[in-house]
Amino acid sequence: MAQEPISLDRALDSFAEQWSPRIVTAVNDYDVRVAKVEGEHVWHAHDHTDEFFLVLDGELRIALREPSGERTVVLPKGSVFTVPRGVEHKPHAPVPTAILLFEPTGTVTTGDRHDEVPAHVDTTTGHALG
Amino acid sequence: MAQEPISLDRALDSFAEQWSPRIVTAVNDYDVRVAKVEGEHVWHAHDHTDEFFLVLDGELRIALREPSGERTVVLPKGSVFTVPRGVEHKPHAPVPTAILLFEPTGTVTTGDRHDEVPAHVDTTTGHALG
Repeated sequence: MAQEPISLDRALDSFAEQWSPRIVTAVNDYDVRVAKVEGEHVWHAHDHTDEFFLVLDGELRIALREPSGERTVVLPKGSVFTVPRGVEHKPHAPVPTAILLFEPTGTVTTGDRHDEVPAHVDTTTGHALG
Repeated sequence: MAQEPISLDRALDSFAEQWSPRIVTAVNDYDVRVAKVEGEHVWHAHDHTDEFFLVLDGELRIALREPSGERTVVLPKGSVFTVPRGVEHKPHAPVPTAILLFEPTGTVTTGDRHDEVPAHVDTTTGHALG
């Protein structure tokens, strides 16, 4: 079937779950995912891939444990950041926030290593749009 | 040096050239690029990669030559579309438009095959942000 453009607003309106990404399209063997987020995710790291974040609405903060120490980057709406592979990070959002992610198909939301996953965090490789 | 988040608005404000993408960040061996566009690009195809478009502002139309015939998809602000590898396509924008692209590092803006490239179209693998 012919592919049609996808409205990110419509995609975001089609689900309510927080920290539970939906796959909007694929680019080769990468996924473009969107997620609604608020509050804290979990410390985790992807050992084999970078992870790209674009803030569509709200504000995302990403705590990072880098060789030089721990810091938090702040991403207002309309900003982007790539977490390098292997870097432990914990996203959190002080307000209801919408993000777009770009990462290899099959990348798990909680990474290859993580702290205990709280109940509100979905461990998934992304869900199909409804 | 520690990476910092990048504002897409600020990135777009840093240059004026149309159809001349700037690389805002890399994700593994992929680039995230932004471009200002208006008017017509050129018919071209990428034989080895899909190409992802997100419209940040304005409206992008992409003419596609598919096995079933030619059609044009319309991407208002906030919508996304992936052009499959091998499909000839010609982006055009009826109004000043800003787009974000994901594609493998080294992907040339005019593809592996193209019509004669008009002077206003930059053949490039993307420029560094100034």
